[in-house]
Amino acid sequence: MPTLVLIRHGQSAWNLENRFTGWWDVDLTDKGVEEAKAAGRLLAEKGFDFDLCFTSVQRRAIRTLNLALEEMERLWLPVEKDWHLNERHYGGLTGLNKAETAAKHGDEQVHIWRRSFDVPPPPIEPGSEYDLSADRRYAGIAVPATESLKDTIARVLPYWESRIVPELKSGKRVVISAHGNSLRALVKHLSGISDDEITSLEIPTGQPIVYELNDAMAATDRYYLSER
Amino acid sequence: MPTLVLIRHGQSAWNLENRFTGWWDVDLTDKGVEEAKAAGRLLAEKGFDFDLCFTSVQRRAIRTLNLALEEMERLWLPVEKDWHLNERHYGGLTGLNKAETAAKHGDEQVHIWRRSFDVPPPPIEPGSEYDLSADRRYAGIAVPATESLKDTIARVLPYWESRIVPELKSGKRVVISAHGNSLRALVKHLSGISDDEITSLEIPTGQPIVYELNDAMAATDRYYLSER
Repeated sequence: MPTLVLIRHGQSAWNLENRFTGWWDVDLTDKGVEEAKAAGRLLAEKGFDFDLCFTSVQRRAIRTLNLALEEMERLWLPVEKDWHLNERHYGGLTGLNKAETAAKHGDEQVHIWRRSFDVPPPPIEPGSEYDLSADRRYAGIAVPATESLKDTIARVLPYWESRIVPELKSGKRVVISAHGNSLRALVKHLSGISDDEITSLEIPTGQPIVYELNDAMAATDRYYLSER
Repeated sequence: MPTLVLIRHGQSAWNLENRFTGWWDVDLTDKGVEEAKAAGRLLAEKGFDFDLCFTSVQRRAIRTLNLALEEMERLWLPVEKDWHLNERHYGGLTGLNKAETAAKHGDEQVHIWRRSFDVPPPPIEPGSEYDLSADRRYAGIAVPATESLKDTIARVLPYWESRIVPELKSGKRVVISAHGNSLRALVKHLSGISDDEITSLEIPTGQPIVYELNDAMAATDRYYLSER
């Protein structure tokens, strides 16, 4: 039976400051570091092991993975880092405080941007402080100017199908360290969650989510490891 | 011109305790962590950047690389971890204190084991405390029971030729985080150092060594980055 574990990165500095983060490369807080280590210890205690790891190219997810692997004494495992697993791009909201944004645009508009399935926030202004389109790590990639959750799913799933599913089918045990919305994309797909429901499904930081899959890569069970 | 930087891992717990380490997976000390971060800061200050990273499957080298990349804001770079870059296997000396070993076997014998080019220490006893032949990370690999420096070179160089040289030739800027003896193997090869001389060439921990190479992968210069 293929093993798949998903981990959302531990608390980041902007989770704590309640700012829209998206692709901006914010680091973990001390609490986030502890969450990542605790995830690794829990996985080791419960007897989980892996053959291959996937993560985004954002440091909060990479560090979460590295810290968890250290606790598992598995720092030597191969890791593939790919932008397709990045957080949803929050467009022009990147860097803004969520409360201030609500005060400016109204609660309803912010709720739409945050919780609608297919409405993207306004695009990021080219050349503005948080525009990463010229960042070397995205060379050769059409960096989005903004994304709805639907847009995020549309780039996560082809990567899932082409890079991760074949490894699971070959028997590799896989862990993915990623972000609230790139993991929503996977959970929606694997657990067959509707467009309406997925936007309100909260993925907690640093909590390993275990998927039991059948050979057709359909989920037969999904649970938080801390609850078993 | 291809860019190649070599870094020996920062101080490990057994560097500090003066014990033969080899393949045993000892962690960095706090000083070793600081050395690794300082190496990353120095590389960033001097304007170095990379496209691809190589390291061993030993945590002291992997963590040194990760800590340096964090300081460089390059944690997203691809990293290939391979046992061919591991430290020389110290056989039956693994875990022993160097002074105690000298008291037991005599200074001269220990000097031969440490400083001869082609005399390996006694083999590690199968199933003994530090025997890693059943470690999952070495599945499918003929784990050596001991190695001379010559033996180490004989497994480092084919990896260098097959995996690293093609990347350098394609224009990739490469950093290698590894160990005293796996780096001696590369320095001997690149700088044309004799069998006699290489055994006494000390590679300091956490000091980036820069190689300037021509297109034929011959060294035109080698220097410690801290000295330029």
